[in-house]
This record gives sequence, C-alpha cells and structure tokens, in this order.
Amino acid sequence: MLNLTSLSEQILLPGTKGLALSAPLKQADIAQQNWNVLDGDTSFPVAVLKRSALRFNLVWMKQFCASHNILLAPHGKTTMSPQIFDMQLANGAWGMTLATVNQLHIAYRYGVKRVLLANQLISASDIRSALSLLKNDPEFIFYALVDSLENVQALSNAVQQAGLDRPLPLLVELGFSGGRTGCRSNADALTLARAIHASPHLELAGIEGYEGLLVTKKREEDLVKVRQFVSDLIELTKSVDAENLFGGESILLSAGGSAYFDLVAHGFKQVQSWSRPLISILRSGCYITHDHGFYHGLIDEMQEREATSVGSKLVPALEVWSMVQSRPEPDLAILTMGKRDASYDIDLPFPLYTHKIGQAHSPQTLPTDCKIEKMNDQHAYLRLPKDSPLCTSLQVGDLVACGISHPCTTFDKWPLLLIVNDNYQVASAINTFF
Amino acid sequence: MLNLTSLSEQILLPGTKGLALSAPLKQADIAQQNWNVLDGDTSFPVAVLKRSALRFNLVWMKQFCASHNILLAPHGKTTMSPQIFDMQLANGAWGMTLATVNQLHIAYRYGVKRVLLANQLISASDIRSALSLLKNDPEFIFYALVDSLENVQALSNAVQQAGLDRPLPLLVELGFSGGRTGCRSNADALTLARAIHASPHLELAGIEGYEGLLVTKKREEDLVKVRQFVSDLIELTKSVDAENLFGGESILLSAGGSAYFDLVAHGFKQVQSWSRPLISILRSGCYITHDHGFYHGLIDEMQEREATSVGSKLVPALEVWSMVQSRPEPDLAILTMGKRDASYDIDLPFPLYTHKIGQAHSPQTLPTDCKIEKMNDQHAYLRLPKDSPLCTSLQVGDLVACGISHPCTTFDKWPLLLIVNDNYQVASAINTFF
Repeated sequence: MLNLTSLSEQILLPGTKGLALSAPLKQADIAQQNWNVLDGDTSFPVAVLKRSALRFNLVWMKQFCASHNILLAPHGKTTMSPQIFDMQLANGAWGMTLATVNQLHIAYRYGVKRVLLANQLISASDIRSALSLLKNDPEFIFYALVDSLENVQALSNAVQQAGLDRPLPLLVELGFSGGRTGCRSNADALTLARAIHASPHLELAGIEGYEGLLVTKKREEDLVKVRQFVSDLIELTKSVDAENLFGGESILLSAGGSAYFDLVAHGFKQVQSWSRPLISILRSGCYITHDHGFYHGLIDEMQEREATSVGSKLVPALEVWSMVQSRPEPDLAILTMGKRDASYDIDLPFPLYTHKIGQAHSPQTLPTDCKIEKMNDQHAYLRLPKDSPLCTSLQVGDLVACGISHPCTTFDKWPLLLIVNDNYQVASAINTFF
Repeated sequence: MLNLTSLSEQILLPGTKGLALSAPLKQADIAQQNWNVLDGDTSFPVAVLKRSALRFNLVWMKQFCASHNILLAPHGKTTMSPQIFDMQLANGAWGMTLATVNQLHIAYRYGVKRVLLANQLISASDIRSALSLLKNDPEFIFYALVDSLENVQALSNAVQQAGLDRPLPLLVELGFSGGRTGCRSNADALTLARAIHASPHLELAGIEGYEGLLVTKKREEDLVKVRQFVSDLIELTKSVDAENLFGGESILLSAGGSAYFDLVAHGFKQVQSWSRPLISILRSGCYITHDHGFYHGLIDEMQEREATSVGSKLVPALEVWSMVQSRPEPDLAILTMGKRDASYDIDLPFPLYTHKIGQAHSPQTLPTDCKIEKMNDQHAYLRLPKDSPLCTSLQVGDLVACGISHPCTTFDKWPLLLIVNDNYQVASAINTFF
C-alpha cells in the first residue's frame, strides 16, 4: 500500500480543473458531494475514469501475466498518478516502470519501492539526485538502462563518488536499426555488458528492449520484426550469461509496451535454463485505461492473435466530458474542450455520447460520423452529419463525451481526474504529477 | 501588484520537473543556488524563459499599444502564470483575458481584479462559481461573451438567483462563417444586444470578435478577411450604439489575437465618436514569450506591414533545454525531451544550440538542417545533417536547446519554468496553473 493520505487530505482550491468549486474542499470529501457528471455538477471539461473499467483492466492484465508466467512493471509515465500506481501494485505488479528521475522521485515520495527506470540516466545532477534515494533508503531500488560506454563509465564514477554501499543495477538496452535508444547490435551490447561486469560499482542485472516503436501501416511486417527483436533479446541474454556477466541473484529480461506484449510474453517463454532464475517483465502502461483509438485497434489485433488466452477485451476507462458552448452553424457545435484537455497527437478525440442535463435517460450514443474536426487550445469543433436530427436537437448546454487515443497525452493535461461509477456518479479523485 | 508571496514561499519537492532536487527547497531560494543551465545544474529537460527577452517584449507591446492608442488585456491562457500576469499588469495591461472559469479563479486567487473572460459562460455550475466571485468582492469584475439567446436568458436567470447587486457585464461576440464561436451576422448580434439590454440583470458592455483564426496559406486573402471582420465589428458597434443598447460608462470593443493585432489596432482607430467613450482592447497572449515558429513568422509579416510604428522585433524568450541521451546512429541523437515537454501541435521544436558542459565558450548555434524529426512521450529524435562535423562531435551528455512553435502548448507542460539571464544563470522561477 502506498502512502496516499497526503493526497486525500489535501485542500483543493477553486480553479481546480474539472471541478466547479466556489470554496476550498478537502479531496477526500469529494465522495460526499453527491456529484454526478450527467447532472452538470462538475466543471466542463472534466476528465473521468470509469471505476468498473479500471477494475476490469487490472484483473485482465493480472490474469494475462499469470497465464503467461510473466511479471508486470507497468509504465507509470502513462498516468503519473500515485493512486493508479497503488491499484497496479495492489494487483500484483512487480514494481513500477518510469521514464525520468523526477518521475522516480514522485513515485518514491508516495512509497513505491522498486522501479525499472526504462531510460538512460545521463545528467550528472539527475544521477546525483537519483543515487541519493538509493543511499538514504536501503529498501528502495531502481534499475536503469545503458546503451553507451561513456554512460557506463559516468555511472561507475558517480556511484563511487556518492559512496553508495551497493552497486547500481543496470540493464543493457538492445535497440534496432532505425529505432530509438539501445545498442544497434548484440556485439555492442555484449561489450557494454563486459564493461558493467568489470566495474565494482555497477551490477549487470539484465537485458532490456522496447519493441513498441515497431508500429507502421504494414502490420504483418511489424510482427515479423517484433518477433525477431524478441528473439534477439533472448540471444543477447544467452551470450551474456554464457560469459557469466550477470551480477544479480536473477536475470531480468524486460520488453513489452502496450501494443505487442503478447508477442513478448510468448517469446520470453522460449528461453532455455540459464545460470540463475529468469525474471521476465512486461512494461505496458496504457492497459490500465486503454483508449478508444490507437490502443483500441492494437489490442483488438492482439485479441485475434491470442484468442485462446485472452477472452474478453480491455475496456476504455478514460473519457473527457465537455459542454456545447456554441451552435453557430447547423452542423457545427463548439465544445468547451481543447488541446489543453484531450490528446491530439495520434488522433483527435472521438465523440461518444451526448446528454441533456436534467433528462433522466442515459447518455445517447452519437453516430460514428460525428467528428471532432479540429481543436484550438480551449475549443473543439464537433462536426455533425448533415441532415442528422442532431443538427436540430444538439443545443447549447448539452454534454458531449469523447473518448481519446493515447492516454498518456490526456493524463498529462489533468492534475486531477474523477473516478466515476457506470452512472457517472463521482466516487473520488486521483492526482497526477507531471 | 499581485499577491505572489505564497508562490515564492512554497516548498518545492524532489520530483519538480526541470529541477534536480535531492531535498526540498523554498522557491525563493532558487536565486541563491547559483545554478546555471550550461553547467548542467538543472534537470534535463528544463524550460527556461530569458529575462531580457521578456522585458523587451513587455516594453515592445506597451509602446505598440501606446502608439496606437489601444489597451491590452493579454490572454492569460498562454502562460497561466501569476508571475507573468504580474509583469503584464505592471506594464500597463488594462486587465487579463482568460478562457475558462477555472482560469478566472486562479487569476483571482493571486489578485487579478479585472478579467475579460473571452468565452461563453455556459455550465450552470461554472456560472455559479464565477458569480460567487462577483458577489463576494465588489472590487472584482469580469466580462463574458455571449453568442446565443439561450445563454443570455440563462445568465440573466443565474444573476437573479445569485442575488448579485450589480448587472453582469457582457460582450456580444461576432464571429464569421466557417469560424468558431460568435454570431454569424450583425443582425443576429443585434438581436442579442437587445435581449441583454432588456434584462435588468445584465449589462451590455461592448462588442467582441476574434480574428486570429484567419490563418491559412494564402495570407493576402487572410488579410482582406481580417480587415473586413474588423470593419464588421465597428459596424455592429455603431448599430448597437444607435439603438442606445450599451449599458456601461464606456463601450468596450475588443479583438486581436497574437497574429494580426496591428490590423485590429488600425481598424479600431477608424471609429466615429459614439454615445460614450470607447475602450479598445487587444488580447494577444503570445507576444510575451513570442516563439521560434508560428508566431515568429506572423510577427515578421506584421513588422513588414508596420515598418513605421514597430521598429525592433519581438524576441523569443522560451527555450527547452535537453540532453543527448543516446547516439545510436551516426546522424541520430536521442534527446531527453518529448511530447510532455515541448509543443508539437503546429511544428516540432527547432534545434537552436548545443553546449558541452564544462566548456567555457557560449552555446554553439546548430545548423538549420538539424531537425527534430519525431517525438515520443519522453524522447526526441534529432537528425543531424549527414557528413556534418556534428556526427562525430555531438556526444552523449551534450546539451541541446530548442525553440518552440506556439508557446501555449509548451507552458501547459511545465508547472514551473526558470527565468535565466543571457548567460543562462538561473535567476528565479515562475509557476503555471493548468
């Protein structure tokens, strides 16, 4: 259990995005406000997470990992929310994955004890502040990635200067040509592994790669490349183990973003027995909320590949509700939602439902040819199908719910999101730290 | 002067983005840390504002407004920073422009007393919380926009229910076909003006429009449309005044984003004398930091139009500094900066300088054919010109400074930005509230 009391006890001030406060309110008291999004009790826009969907996705992923005998260090950069981290750890996550030293500090502040820092630790000032956590708390551990000899040397020196009484555990990152970070060949990676092994201040804890960048419009080719890359990771691990370079009690082997983690799980099952126990770790971050766009499509494909082991589907949990602010033209509604409120990096938001405040029936599903065609900083342009009944029925003050594509870039726009039940009754809030 | 003490006295915790803290630090004590970005003392990425550029731009805009006899209510949504608001008000701004009720609350919290809320106030809960500010503080005033009769009626009822002892001042918004919010004809706008005049709870304070959306690749046509729109605004104001519908001591006439405010200023000079004094208000938000992309181009064009009245140019103040994290391929450097750190909605960031920590000389200007070709959430892909000396000289740990395009979508990624002098010595910090 993480230490979340400071969050539930904090005082939210008027101006908190998503809330329509006229006076300060203790965060824990949100539960007693009897707010309902459909009654217009929040501010608009407001970002909501459906509690049932979060719970479903947590169990789904737990079962997926159990059935594939693999562990999960969910990527915390997606949500950067201590309350979500707590749900993930309570559902069996091995630890959290994070991307930056500042994210590491935030996770540590709320009690996370094991982090896979899935990035190179480069800046001397960042390295110092990260090592200070290891030095001051023997229960805390993080693993960082390396892909260059300069970095191995810098880290070795930094650990020595910090006077750390344990070696810094590192994973050698394997990449691929045209990719992002990571060694471009197993030979280069092996050279790094030897250099880490040679330093008394470092420990070679395992091997890491990230296959999630291999998303193009040619999926069949992508899948071949992903499988090859997973196979390369295993080959590299084998070579490193053959030279007896690993330094921990186990060998960590990690890959797996939110698109192809099934292929990683299958690939990692193929490993032979090695000098010490293998800990295989997936790092998907987006499964927790899923989405209505990019990952929706990718996970649908995964479910076709995985028909036997994955029954039901991940459920989108994240919606942004806004209000019709203007109806300036028959087929155009301007919404109180913009680039500050919803992802726009892969797709623009997807209009899902509309609701008239004060009407008892459930939100009405919008036809799929309703489109958000543009967003400004604080406005969205909802284009209605010409001659649709909506052109007359959708009015100023009506609510519109949108799904999003790529949860990471919606979470980072909301310091606070509301947890709602299936009737959009507000149960609680979560905080994010970006 | 705004009330900024609570910000300078606040304790910053490890994990604060842009800072490499190992222990809590009072914000005001940043000045004594002797940090320099070029020495690697911050975390990377870090967003910095050049103090000299901010000062220059403040004076530039003050002179522009004085020479055109127009007032400024800078759009606060750009920065949402109380410290920046304070600079703008201290440099003669009439008030702040804001986009949402939550932004209104934040400005009010720090002492802003006059706001042009350049948006429709639609949600009943948001209206209640906005009116509570007017009710509790007779010194506070905001003006909101209307573009529908439903909204006029809803606001009239809300003011009555709130028991407000003064009418709510409103501006009728004129739009244009294919635009965003706003009445599509002067006739519709006049109807609204009459409805506002007829309500004892509302006051018709003026007329508003926003010409800044008229940016296409055909600039000559854009300019014709902008001039016509400004002319339409004046015509509408004349018609409304002829019916004696304005209710305040003055008539507010406002337009002017960050692209064409010269055309607005020129157009507003053409007005005839009316029944009461005219207050013309520009609302540019981006001038304060300017940028290296979208507004750089638009302001260059303005300076060609305005050669006589605008001498020197606005200066870009906002840079994001990151570090080379990986050099996986000869012409590729991966930077510690991504979609969470820099604008990507209009252009990707522009690489400006590189600097080797520990070397005394100034940052080196990067050739213009160095490009950020992609960003992930936490990484940028810097492509180097093939066969450039940079392919060998740019190393892991080197700093890279980027300019951005569209400051609004960089500010909203940084709760804290650092103010630096021309040598990148850190002088202080500002806070943002998104």
